[in-house]
Amino acid sequence: MTTMRAAVLRDIRHLAIEERPVPEPGPGEVLVRVDAVGVCGSDVHYYQHGRIGDFVVERPMVLGHESGGVVTAVGPGVDASRIGQRVSVEPGVPDLTCPECLAGRYNLCPGMRFFATPPIDGSLAGYVTVHAAFAHPVPDSISDDAAALLEPLSVGVWACRKGRVGAGSRVLITGAGPIGLVATQCARAFGATEIVVADLNPHRLKLARDLGATATVDAGDTPLGETGIEPTVLLECSGHPGATTDALRTLGRAGRAVLVGMGDDGLPLPLTFVQSREIEVTGTFRYANTWPAAIALAASGRVDVDSLVTGHFPLAESEAALLAAERDPLAVKSVINPQR
Amino acid sequence: MTTMRAAVLRDIRHLAIEERPVPEPGPGEVLVRVDAVGVCGSDVHYYQHGRIGDFVVERPMVLGHESGGVVTAVGPGVDASRIGQRVSVEPGVPDLTCPECLAGRYNLCPGMRFFATPPIDGSLAGYVTVHAAFAHPVPDSISDDAAALLEPLSVGVWACRKGRVGAGSRVLITGAGPIGLVATQCARAFGATEIVVADLNPHRLKLARDLGATATVDAGDTPLGETGIEPTVLLECSGHPGATTDALRTLGRAGRAVLVGMGDDGLPLPLTFVQSREIEVTGTFRYANTWPAAIALAASGRVDVDSLVTGHFPLAESEAALLAAERDPLAVKSVINPQR
Amino acid sequence: MTTMRAAVLRDIRHLAIEERPVPEPGPGEVLVRVDAVGVCGSDVHYYQHGRIGDFVVERPMVLGHESGGVVTAVGPGVDASRIGQRVSVEPGVPDLTCPECLAGRYNLCPGMRFFATPPIDGSLAGYVTVHAAFAHPVPDSISDDAAALLEPLSVGVWACRKGRVGAGSRVLITGAGPIGLVATQCARAFGATEIVVADLNPHRLKLARDLGATATVDAGDTPLGETGIEPTVLLECSGHPGATTDALRTLGRAGRAVLVGMGDDGLPLPLTFVQSREIEVTGTFRYANTWPAAIALAASGRVDVDSLVTGHFPLAESEAALLAAERDPLAVKSVINPQR
Amino acid sequence: MTTMRAAVLRDIRHLAIEERPVPEPGPGEVLVRVDAVGVCGSDVHYYQHGRIGDFVVERPMVLGHESGGVVTAVGPGVDASRIGQRVSVEPGVPDLTCPECLAGRYNLCPGMRFFATPPIDGSLAGYVTVHAAFAHPVPDSISDDAAALLEPLSVGVWACRKGRVGAGSRVLITGAGPIGLVATQCARAFGATEIVVADLNPHRLKLARDLGATATVDAGDTPLGETGIEPTVLLECSGHPGATTDALRTLGRAGRAVLVGMGDDGLPLPLTFVQSREIEVTGTFRYANTWPAAIALAASGRVDVDSLVTGHFPLAESEAALLAAERDPLAVKSVINPQR
Repeated sequence: MTTMRAAVLRDIRHLAIEERPVPEPGPGEVLVRVDAVGVCGSDVHYYQHGRIGDFVVERPMVLGHESGGVVTAVGPGVDASRIGQRVSVEPGVPDLTCPECLAGRYNLCPGMRFFATPPIDGSLAGYVTVHAAFAHPVPDSISDDAAALLEPLSVGVWACRKGRVGAGSRVLITGAGPIGLVATQCARAFGATEIVVADLNPHRLKLARDLGATATVDAGDTPLGETGIEPTVLLECSGHPGATTDALRTLGRAGRAVLVGMGDDGLPLPLTFVQSREIEVTGTFRYANTWPAAIALAASGRVDVDSLVTGHFPLAESEAALLAAERDPLAVKSVINPQR
Repeated sequence: MTTMRAAVLRDIRHLAIEERPVPEPGPGEVLVRVDAVGVCGSDVHYYQHGRIGDFVVERPMVLGHESGGVVTAVGPGVDASRIGQRVSVEPGVPDLTCPECLAGRYNLCPGMRFFATPPIDGSLAGYVTVHAAFAHPVPDSISDDAAALLEPLSVGVWACRKGRVGAGSRVLITGAGPIGLVATQCARAFGATEIVVADLNPHRLKLARDLGATATVDAGDTPLGETGIEPTVLLECSGHPGATTDALRTLGRAGRAVLVGMGDDGLPLPLTFVQSREIEVTGTFRYANTWPAAIALAASGRVDVDSLVTGHFPLAESEAALLAAERDPLAVKSVINPQR
Repeated sequence: MTTMRAAVLRDIRHLAIEERPVPEPGPGEVLVRVDAVGVCGSDVHYYQHGRIGDFVVERPMVLGHESGGVVTAVGPGVDASRIGQRVSVEPGVPDLTCPECLAGRYNLCPGMRFFATPPIDGSLAGYVTVHAAFAHPVPDSISDDAAALLEPLSVGVWACRKGRVGAGSRVLITGAGPIGLVATQCARAFGATEIVVADLNPHRLKLARDLGATATVDAGDTPLGETGIEPTVLLECSGHPGATTDALRTLGRAGRAVLVGMGDDGLPLPLTFVQSREIEVTGTFRYANTWPAAIALAASGRVDVDSLVTGHFPLAESEAALLAAERDPLAVKSVINPQR
Repeated sequence: MTTMRAAVLRDIRHLAIEERPVPEPGPGEVLVRVDAVGVCGSDVHYYQHGRIGDFVVERPMVLGHESGGVVTAVGPGVDASRIGQRVSVEPGVPDLTCPECLAGRYNLCPGMRFFATPPIDGSLAGYVTVHAAFAHPVPDSISDDAAALLEPLSVGVWACRKGRVGAGSRVLITGAGPIGLVATQCARAFGATEIVVADLNPHRLKLARDLGATATVDAGDTPLGETGIEPTVLLECSGHPGATTDALRTLGRAGRAVLVGMGDDGLPLPLTFVQSREIEVTGTFRYANTWPAAIALAASGRVDVDSLVTGHFPLAESEAALLAAERDPLAVKSVINPQR
């Protein structure tokens, strides 16, 4: 087979299934047959708006960056024994030699090439090539879906690391979308004993409870400040400025706030509160060195990403997968199967 | 009631049950009616040898330092609302103002007064007084036994903190005595996904598996170096120099070794290995700031210390409780009930 | 002598010198004859406005909290050998037993009693009592002025710790008031090799260069974003929201911002920038465990706080000392000598 | 020019100056004309013994790994603007993609290729090729000698980082050879205010005082345990087991020991001491991410590596340079100039 299908964003709200040549793995790369691709909010955002902040889709671009599959070929310098391995694809390959990379913070590499971030094509296609070190082998206890969803799981792992969630932590998670829900599971896996999740959607709050939340707050009903919670860590996954500020103000002394949800600049920071309690506030940008932990957590059953999947779609129905979130309030995570 | 019974070590292998006045809580203190006291290896060691290293029992001393009970009176300056609270007693009260205390390392306070460490009397008695801040309230979901056993649990929490056990850690635990077994549970609660426990006693290895070990090694059968494990963290709980050195040599790069088990000086350190892998080696001395996490872990069911208890004894049979470990290979943790 | 003079804030812009009884040191306390008191911006603010945020002066209050002197008496439980010691007074005594204190973060203790923070009297008086552990002995190489100014020096030490300033750090300091200037010296002592100070006052920028700044920026002339600097650490000491936001945007990847200067709530946080660079933002509240380092830095000549002093005043002229900053643009730090 | 001279270790105590082809820079590499090479103890050890531990010189090998020079050509993919840059060569290039590299610990990379570690040729030659990212540009304020000596300086920077030396640290350094002397300077640059250096050689102790030691101990005269010092950090640079154990026993509570000096396995660890004070012991293996700090420290004058140089040798006299240390007790660091 020398061609494959790919889901290409040609314009705002215009996704085309195109025939493209199967790429050749370059030196140090592997070719991965893509079996599952999770739909991320960023895919939907590019589809709806053609841009995210300064990242503008100026040429047709293949969407997708949450992907798993099987290695089918290797490039020069890669051991052929990798052929046949089931892998989870880490979608961003940094330059490996800038100061950030050498210091272990490769997510901050200015030379990062990340799937489906313009102008780099994504993985919503029959095949992709990726650096061999970023195609992480997974055991059979991890399903195809889960292999793809180790990517959003990594966002949760990274958030928990940044927030230094540990045994006995009290965690508040604002926003129970896919990221809030993986953060919930990760918080539990990191040892948090109190995990409060706030959202407006009762269905998602129910799901949060099923996945490890010890309590949930209907954010439309109860102001966070009146819940009496005093978390040590806030994992902000909603991107709503109001929720963020309210949530910050619940933090206990020396608490940490990790801002995962993307929002507007000019977020009003409660300075006096941040100072008098010495709150640490930070934002996350993707993740680094999370796959080994994500694989271990998923393989050991400590987290269950399969249960987030609310729909499977063949590649030809990718557009429906992208629209699921806005059409169906019960949808959480759609998975596209490029081989179907 | 103005007198109480106490189990007093009068000489080597001579434990007497004596009548003593109930102590008065001083300023800032509470009086605790002791309902459960766990027997620790150090109690047994003092009973058998009259000393542990430089700590020599020169006068009769009440044994016991793992204890839970109920506040029955308060000293000056303590809110009377504390009367009736079920508490777990943290057995060491530091001076609070030395540089170590002010820096949050109160376990290293040179002025520490610790139950049943000569010449300080322990808590194997009807009542004890303790600083109000070191009598930690526990919820009803924590049993009397568990309230006492938060003390050894704290040793495990501290070991995991020192070893920076986290989500996805691979942990080797050498020694499956009570401390190794709480360390096993803590490692799991801290997010470790691979937990290998090594011991000679098959009964204890079975218990380790029940409590969260993902694999066990019969140390008499299989040299640790031949197990193929490469942990990120070693929690050494056996005190055997040979096991320690062998276990150190299994650590992966940048691994951490936490030496919890007490042993002889002159432990042979594999220097070249430690350097070429940049292994961190540290020892633990009791714990600091562990009760909040220990309570949260026990109350949430993340750890189960009740299942370590293999025998209950009334105060009058304290000597039998002390002898249980050497008489019965199936014994793990004896609990004495001073009110019986 | 059984009475002493004290500088009492009776109302806004009304400071009275009153005769008051010399206090008796309580258990664990020492009595300190106060030889030097630095005037802090907070003293000036209380004098001008009668409040700082939620802290309102509702009764007459002695000002002053930067103080050094000599121990002249000891309370019960304190070794008499301390009498005659020259000391620097740490002005806040926490409750020592709350969770924050036990964890080593005593600056966050809700029970903190801090000099000249309503309703606690300050140290601008002939004598003060303080907990013996918070009256830090100083060597003769530290002058009386410097003993007092270890307090603002501690603010700089704490800011550098929070920002993890270290060997080779590139530090931007916004605001060259007394705190910015001690931060400059501390940054140098912590090993920073690039220290850029921004302010509007050319005299203070000159002083910053004398004290270790490697470059200065006239903030009125040059927008921070056009200076080409890309610091690893920002120590914000101006309290100006505009300067803060501009300065934040200069930080390099994984940079840290320490907000020391007090300002209004609702500081606009550049969220996208904070996320894409994973900036850590935190505020400081006083300091903890800084005196040993501050003493070592001052005694070894690594920092020079004496050079900040631009005027000495007898107690009777305390009001002039408070007004110096607004009257004289060349004034940096006024010191009052209560024994004069 | 197509050939160059290189100093090749042909057998134990047999160093030959050979004519070799100038290497071609490969993809991502630069060609560096080598102007200065420092002689390291490891070069001397290979010359004297043909091996260091498991590293055995089995084929002729060019010595040398402390080197500076000028970029004279670039390989494919490297910007030609680098030609003419003065650089300091970091002598070990890791594989960049193993888990250790991705985590920022590239010094622990199992695939590391390090100059003059068998079988990799070193840099004691007219030219070397190296990955462009490991040829660090240096400003003119750094001399040719200093450019070479940023390598041993990096060892000192790394030791101080591992020991978390900071402002106000009290540091004990055992061994005043070149590494002990750079550690002394680094400790000072990191903010240590008490730096005690112990050695047997009075000349080196004098040099240590000149370079920042606040006190020195003649280790032949005074047992370390009788000096009254209680450091927070030990930087062990002697490799003597006796000195190491004695030095460990001086550490204060929560102290850190960094074992830099290479020695035999089976170092006797004072376990009880390590536990009761919770001492952290670690070893160092080369360094990671140290050049930026080393350059900043040298360029700013915070450290002075030029003053360690006690002799310059043309390439033809490399053998004399290697023998300087054993022939002349005043020799500290020999520098070879391959272009002479």
